[in-house]
Amino acid sequence: MVEKQVKKTIFIAGFMGTGKTTVGKEVARYLGRRFIDTDFLICQESNCENVEDFFSRFGKSIFRKKEFEIISRLADSGNVISLGGGSDQNPEIKNILISQHLVRLVAPMSEIEKRIKNGSGRPLWEKREELYQKREGEQSLGLKINTGNKQIGEVVSLVLRTLNAGIEIINKQHNIILGWGSSNHSIDEDNSVGVIENDVSGYLFAFPKGCNEILNFSGGEGSKTYKSIHGLLDFFNQAGLSRDGSVVVMGGGAISDTVGFAASIHLRGVPVHLIPTTLLSMVDASIGGKFAVNFGNAKNLVGNFQMPKSIRIDSSFLPTLKHEEYLSGLAEMIKMSCLDEELFSAVYKDIKSLKNQNLIKLDSYIKKVVNLKCEYVDADPYDIDNQRIFLNFGHTVGHAIELSSSEKIRHGEAVGLGMVAMSKWSEMEGLSETGTAGIIQDMLERAGLPTNIEHFNIDKASFFEALQKDKKWTSQGLNVVYPKAIGDFEISNLTNPPAEKWLDLIS
Amino acid sequence: MVEKQVKKTIFIAGFMGTGKTTVGKEVARYLGRRFIDTDFLICQESNCENVEDFFSRFGKSIFRKKEFEIISRLADSGNVISLGGGSDQNPEIKNILISQHLVRLVAPMSEIEKRIKNGSGRPLWEKREELYQKREGEQSLGLKINTGNKQIGEVVSLVLRTLNAGIEIINKQHNIILGWGSSNHSIDEDNSVGVIENDVSGYLFAFPKGCNEILNFSGGEGSKTYKSIHGLLDFFNQAGLSRDGSVVVMGGGAISDTVGFAASIHLRGVPVHLIPTTLLSMVDASIGGKFAVNFGNAKNLVGNFQMPKSIRIDSSFLPTLKHEEYLSGLAEMIKMSCLDEELFSAVYKDIKSLKNQNLIKLDSYIKKVVNLKCEYVDADPYDIDNQRIFLNFGHTVGHAIELSSSEKIRHGEAVGLGMVAMSKWSEMEGLSETGTAGIIQDMLERAGLPTNIEHFNIDKASFFEALQKDKKWTSQGLNVVYPKAIGDFEISNLTNPPAEKWLDLIS
Repeated sequence: MVEKQVKKTIFIAGFMGTGKTTVGKEVARYLGRRFIDTDFLICQESNCENVEDFFSRFGKSIFRKKEFEIISRLADSGNVISLGGGSDQNPEIKNILISQHLVRLVAPMSEIEKRIKNGSGRPLWEKREELYQKREGEQSLGLKINTGNKQIGEVVSLVLRTLNAGIEIINKQHNIILGWGSSNHSIDEDNSVGVIENDVSGYLFAFPKGCNEILNFSGGEGSKTYKSIHGLLDFFNQAGLSRDGSVVVMGGGAISDTVGFAASIHLRGVPVHLIPTTLLSMVDASIGGKFAVNFGNAKNLVGNFQMPKSIRIDSSFLPTLKHEEYLSGLAEMIKMSCLDEELFSAVYKDIKSLKNQNLIKLDSYIKKVVNLKCEYVDADPYDIDNQRIFLNFGHTVGHAIELSSSEKIRHGEAVGLGMVAMSKWSEMEGLSETGTAGIIQDMLERAGLPTNIEHFNIDKASFFEALQKDKKWTSQGLNVVYPKAIGDFEISNLTNPPAEKWLDLIS
Repeated sequence: MVEKQVKKTIFIAGFMGTGKTTVGKEVARYLGRRFIDTDFLICQESNCENVEDFFSRFGKSIFRKKEFEIISRLADSGNVISLGGGSDQNPEIKNILISQHLVRLVAPMSEIEKRIKNGSGRPLWEKREELYQKREGEQSLGLKINTGNKQIGEVVSLVLRTLNAGIEIINKQHNIILGWGSSNHSIDEDNSVGVIENDVSGYLFAFPKGCNEILNFSGGEGSKTYKSIHGLLDFFNQAGLSRDGSVVVMGGGAISDTVGFAASIHLRGVPVHLIPTTLLSMVDASIGGKFAVNFGNAKNLVGNFQMPKSIRIDSSFLPTLKHEEYLSGLAEMIKMSCLDEELFSAVYKDIKSLKNQNLIKLDSYIKKVVNLKCEYVDADPYDIDNQRIFLNFGHTVGHAIELSSSEKIRHGEAVGLGMVAMSKWSEMEGLSETGTAGIIQDMLERAGLPTNIEHFNIDKASFFEALQKDKKWTSQGLNVVYPKAIGDFEISNLTNPPAEKWLDLIS
């Protein structure tokens, strides 16, 4: 199980200047752990300014002794601990590290020199070249991660992967696999092709083995077009993709929507394996076999149903996201939790940890939210029995906001605003329990999500036009979803939807 | 039941020159009945040259008496009988006609004058204007069909419709309705749009009521493109087609393939009602929910599965087809019959009637063939369990021939050639019972279908290239279907298909 395996202490080793402290702090934050720097702790406990100061006052051997003592003391703490350079060459320390998680950061010397401009506070700085050569030659423990030329999020993501947090099938029917590293869980297809979003193309190493050809594809809402489908069909055709092959997609929701649709019509349907790399896609877009592109200014107008053959949810991708993008996914998680009172209470309690991307907590909520979504999908796989429509809570107004803000607003943010608009309206109309809208708005605010449109430039005419194109229009009127209370939703068919009012409620 | 209802005698009334004889003969041929012209019979039995001659020798009242006598005699014969102009004004004759089928042909005077250039042999030709006005004013029985400006096939088709031959649900699960006039069987959808092939747009009157908008669409293989799909999606979007609506398609297989696919991806799938107007589509293309367009020089490369909501097989469309086009459909019927020994024997026995478009016989075989195809479809709806693949007998070589002849050869003809090539090859390889290829070839020849490619300009390089693009390629090799015997088929996976040999066997 995920949680158990990561409970070991995480040691981060590496030469000076490879980023142990910066990375360690971020890893700790993502795991909701404490971060400890052994060098810092040694100096603090001995009232030294820095390691250079310690060396000059007590000498190197006392330092190593102290170092061993501290590492022994913290060995089972479960914290994230960055080690001083070279400390792991001590055989006794090695024995401790072997029983825990150990990650080794490396970087080219040129980059190290850039990072530590004048070597201040670093002992042995003068001898760095000699030392670097020596360490390179030494037997070293732990999985190496090169931090050269990488964003911090990427390094954190790689560290999480090395923790081998365990892969768990969280939904057998939908073949959904959760766990850090699940992205490169093997695919047993002979004749597959891959499509990988440009943004995460650096993660090609995480891609399952065995794809004959891999296409880099630019993601984002702008790529969800009929034209993109043509290009993808060309690629499949050129690559000789046959019906016993499959398509592996790694990227966000826009790319899986587009590639999944193309795959579903190539040879009347080739299986698709999804590796979502955004939270939005992990909890929503990738689940349930809905694939579509935008068409004629309407969202998801053209598409298909095809259940993915597998979905690999690897939350170790999340540190690579911009925080706003992460929050956009969190909005969809909050939407899902509105459908289940117990889940809503739990998320409400843990919202701060979730906002701060505590990945351990997050995985446990991803599991719950994904399984809840699967229940709705299973009850109405083809969206014809008005069951799946509940998943659209907030989406009627949300989609229209997204389109009328020239898509400068993120999908999840727009859905959050849609949830506020709909719940305020239904409460105003006497359809919901008093306080329902308030608690939803409160949850979104605690999550750091917008609850009014004042900072977004919404074009009213486009908003009304976009509402007219909603897929939930029937010949009778527009089907809208609103909460009677948290965990208790209803559908209403409105001949003349009060679009103006909805906009006012979030203005 | 179809057969029972048409067994009544069919009387064709109308003013002189409206086409009673021409139409009557053709109707009789389509129904496998005798044709009798009362004027001709009266003259023959009285040794008169023509009606003018009879009038001058015996007078009009004797003629009317004789006419009544003949009509009484033939009343229950079940034949197709064209009446002399004005004969139905006799009340006693009216009583006879009421109990049988009666169709009344009309035409504008200008056209009648063109048809009967000098009035030779027509009594009362001088008084035609006066008579025409008088008849127009008289109460007349039977359904009127205007033959002005119409091809003979169209008129025959309309006559068949008026016979009200009964509509029968021949497959409940697939909602397949058979019968002359089933095309305008009502559709209970509120919000539908129609797409009608240009070739049959004159049959708009036969289109089910209740479509908000109807698009004329050019059919044929050339329209099965990715670009056409874009145009159709635009149409659906502009027409505001919602998920509780449907699309009604009237036309041949190319149009139903294209429109059906577009409908299956509009809003992730809107129901489709099919009205096939060619035999090929009635027995094959419209059945089984496979929709696709050609892409990148490969047939049906891009498509989808969606079971049609209803299929209305109205064989009264068939007289409008060119004979070669009709035979192309017959080839697919023969292919289907190869899968069932008993059906094959029956078709073999009746092949002459079928070649001559005996619509009564044809309907009974359409029913059998369609139900047989449904059995294969039900066994493997999504074409993944190698059951539906048997329906592809003849198609591997056939598709390649179709593509490499620049599509000057019709689909069914090409499939027929493919059947000959595959069965000869399998017999040569010792895989089939001796004589299997011979009897298949014999059946096709009796049907008037080609069994070698000498009259078709096949480009060998294109043929080999087209084979490479076959959808039945797996990562192991090409799946081909061949007969062990009539009614007993096998699949073989060939790494290096003997393409050259296949072509030789039909050269």
